[in-house]
Amino acid sequence: MTFLGTSAAVPTKARALPAIAVRREGEVILMDCGEGVQRGAVEESIGLGGPMTILITHLHGDHVAGMLGLLQTMSLSQRRRPLRIVGPRRLLKWLEVTSDLLHMGLTFPVEFVEAKPGVVLRTPGFRVKAARASHSIEAFSYVLEEKGRPGVFYPDRAKSLGVPEGRLWSSLQRGRGVTVGGRRVEPSQVTGPPRPGRKIGYSGDTRPSPGLTRFFARCDLLVFDSTFGAKDGVKALDRKHSTSVEAAELAKKAAVRKLALTHFSARYTSTAGLVREARRVFQNTVAARDGLCLSVDYPSA
Amino acid sequence: MTFLGTSAAVPTKARALPAIAVRREGEVILMDCGEGVQRGAVEESIGLGGPMTILITHLHGDHVAGMLGLLQTMSLSQRRRPLRIVGPRRLLKWLEVTSDLLHMGLTFPVEFVEAKPGVVLRTPGFRVKAARASHSIEAFSYVLEEKGRPGVFYPDRAKSLGVPEGRLWSSLQRGRGVTVGGRRVEPSQVTGPPRPGRKIGYSGDTRPSPGLTRFFARCDLLVFDSTFGAKDGVKALDRKHSTSVEAAELAKKAAVRKLALTHFSARYTSTAGLVREARRVFQNTVAARDGLCLSVDYPSA
Repeated sequence: MTFLGTSAAVPTKARALPAIAVRREGEVILMDCGEGVQRGAVEESIGLGGPMTILITHLHGDHVAGMLGLLQTMSLSQRRRPLRIVGPRRLLKWLEVTSDLLHMGLTFPVEFVEAKPGVVLRTPGFRVKAARASHSIEAFSYVLEEKGRPGVFYPDRAKSLGVPEGRLWSSLQRGRGVTVGGRRVEPSQVTGPPRPGRKIGYSGDTRPSPGLTRFFARCDLLVFDSTFGAKDGVKALDRKHSTSVEAAELAKKAAVRKLALTHFSARYTSTAGLVREARRVFQNTVAARDGLCLSVDYPSA
Repeated sequence: MTFLGTSAAVPTKARALPAIAVRREGEVILMDCGEGVQRGAVEESIGLGGPMTILITHLHGDHVAGMLGLLQTMSLSQRRRPLRIVGPRRLLKWLEVTSDLLHMGLTFPVEFVEAKPGVVLRTPGFRVKAARASHSIEAFSYVLEEKGRPGVFYPDRAKSLGVPEGRLWSSLQRGRGVTVGGRRVEPSQVTGPPRPGRKIGYSGDTRPSPGLTRFFARCDLLVFDSTFGAKDGVKALDRKHSTSVEAAELAKKAAVRKLALTHFSARYTSTAGLVREARRVFQNTVAARDGLCLSVDYPSA
């Protein structure tokens, strides 16, 4: 996961507007597209030609304005592959009107999926789920659930059952049973228990809520709205955002493995204070910054 | 004049998308609003709360997408003063639809003026004229004509005509006649000839044309499309842009004082070659770069 922009509402010298890229085996999932996202993608060497899905949390300009330049640049580089976009229904209307009035001439089809609570999409690597967030306008949070992998393969067990190395091992590793000398060998006989995939959560702009706590349960990495520090809790309540401490409290209740704070108000030149407050509640917390790349480990079995 | 973005079509690591700010006595004229303009404005300390006029040359995304973030940020900082926007008619429709769908909640009135050949607007400091450019879609070039100033005031002449220093001198300096001891003294008796204001031209995206040569005649500073170098002249023709040499040829014919090349294709990491070619035709040529600030001198009388 690479953070391309970590600011709230207005950019600062150090922070661009919200955009996060998740990369997995050539696939890119972009979560929100703040102004400048295409420039961030160039700086972080994120290719724009491969399989890509864009998830938009809500229709505030600071989360979507970067789509224009992004889609335009994809067209200038002659992208042909479909682009999947998930977001509130009115996003499609905005894209259609804008594409027409600004002569965008897209070279690729846009496959739009309206965001709704539940599973919204399956990508090559992930099942994408949405849940209602609690913001000043209709807003969604997203979870990326990686497909589980078969269990660890034990060559010794396969050998002892008389399965010769090669094509049959490969079948067993992929979860398919094989027949050797008239005898059936099932994957479960030669592999450990199935290993769960990774789970990544992104809150977008939101207040914390019991629904989101459930939605983000046991995420390996949760990225959460942390617009304000604890002493600006009233502002967070008023503007439908969260404080870093509220993010940490939710992370703790949801039993996530790691929390990344983002979407910082421009009033905080340094985010050190926000992280410090959050860590008192949930130790494994980091502050996102533009260009930060986090590797998400597999959960231990 | 400060260049906030000097790239064509796509941003590069060094160049943002087209945007130019002209500042004069607290007034700001923004010419084109490429993605990132609000960030450029912060970096260059260009205030967003004062008298401002935005001139948009044409409706390609790379010239307008930055307006969204700019207008949004002005609203977040509670701008109340009207914002004047000049551009092709469809720009207004795009702004209206976008403002609605993206919940922009502007805190200030937008005074939209449709671009048409001729005088389109008078600002505190300038008369703004438009002319049709020659691009792939409807496009305009703009000229900013500063109001002329009264001639140089000669205190000795005023004294010799018996005008006492103070309020009466001030009247004469502002072009108003005064009466001293029953005698009339006209400004022409104590000042030199009226001094012309400065003239600034901006081509936007365009091929060169005889019409534009006339339109930009005797500009003190002309900013012209220089997307390509001479060896890519066919591309310039095909895509309705200009080469740096074509820009220089027009500058020479139009007898401008200084030429600034901008809107460089991302293929040119360095613009030195483009300037070198242009200077063989028109010596007083510079290449714009992001952050470049040019002071426009008054023409000598």
